[in-house]
Amino acid sequence: MDAPPEEDPRPQELTAQSSLVLVNTGDGKGKSTAAFGTMLRALAMGWGVCVVQFIKSGDWKVGEQKMAEQLGVDWIAAGEGFSWDSDNLDHDKAIAQKGWDEAAARINSGDYRLVILDEITYPLNWGWIDTEPVIETISNRPGDLNLVLTGRDAPQALIDVADTATEMKSIKHAYDRGIRAKKGIDY
Amino acid sequence: MDAPPEEDPRPQELTAQSSLVLVNTGDGKGKSTAAFGTMLRALAMGWGVCVVQFIKSGDWKVGEQKMAEQLGVDWIAAGEGFSWDSDNLDHDKAIAQKGWDEAAARINSGDYRLVILDEITYPLNWGWIDTEPVIETISNRPGDLNLVLTGRDAPQALIDVADTATEMKSIKHAYDRGIRAKKGIDY
Repeated sequence: MDAPPEEDPRPQELTAQSSLVLVNTGDGKGKSTAAFGTMLRALAMGWGVCVVQFIKSGDWKVGEQKMAEQLGVDWIAAGEGFSWDSDNLDHDKAIAQKGWDEAAARINSGDYRLVILDEITYPLNWGWIDTEPVIETISNRPGDLNLVLTGRDAPQALIDVADTATEMKSIKHAYDRGIRAKKGIDY
Repeated sequence: MDAPPEEDPRPQELTAQSSLVLVNTGDGKGKSTAAFGTMLRALAMGWGVCVVQFIKSGDWKVGEQKMAEQLGVDWIAAGEGFSWDSDNLDHDKAIAQKGWDEAAARINSGDYRLVILDEITYPLNWGWIDTEPVIETISNRPGDLNLVLTGRDAPQALIDVADTATEMKSIKHAYDRGIRAKKGIDY
């Protein structure tokens, strides 16, 4: 048991920054989920929010999309399924590229204070989207636009451009004991 | 660059479970944020949701509370501030205990399909709440009630009772470079 700390452990001198880039990566749960939590905060501020979803996965994220759209979020499905479900990778690659072009247009539109690039690391890691223009677009974004990027194995260049990067690391996972993902909780 | 995987990496034979216990711990960002993302999913299912917030921290989570209550969530502020702000630890300890009693009543009420015990690890680790009755209440909860528990340094007993436990691990944090937490993103 720990004694309750007597001193505030947070740094004392802090500067404000007009916007932040967050990366949620790692093999554990909570990468996209935390992005949707951040979305809720941004909505509470009355900000314009856009979600670009780079991986389409059947029923997955239907709940999030429904709630997000009810709350006024622009939700863009910009990808196809995971590669192992595909019978035409060239087609999926073209869709990912088109998805990125749309995401870049939204980022540069000035319409939003938060854009979430959900599961963008997969098409990046598979070479379906080039990393360089993504980093450039992030670096040159409108000054008040915050970004959250999610997905496993975030490329180092993404970590480098992020203000805050978090690894969601699995300690234990229901999957490992053969328990099915639960609608309403896991998706 | 990785080749896109050709096989679905998820386990093949899975069983359904009537409810899940999730623990979000670690020193990184996204523990509470992911809990609020899960809340959104539960709301999309039309579930009753209750949030019990064990640490009160001034302006923090005002945005989440506002959005949650708009969406029909019961939000219970069941704690005082962090210990370093306190001038009466006995008082805070009594409030934490009262908060846990209220949380246990909500868990056992049958009114909810999701209860979030936000930042409960702090009063547990400081000995303000006994761990044993918490574990017992979790183990004997109504069969369809899902739980999400958050906070740093989750006690092993919590990890043991969880179906899924995730460590949010800081890779880099804006704080470390002296950047202030940003309203709408960090809180």
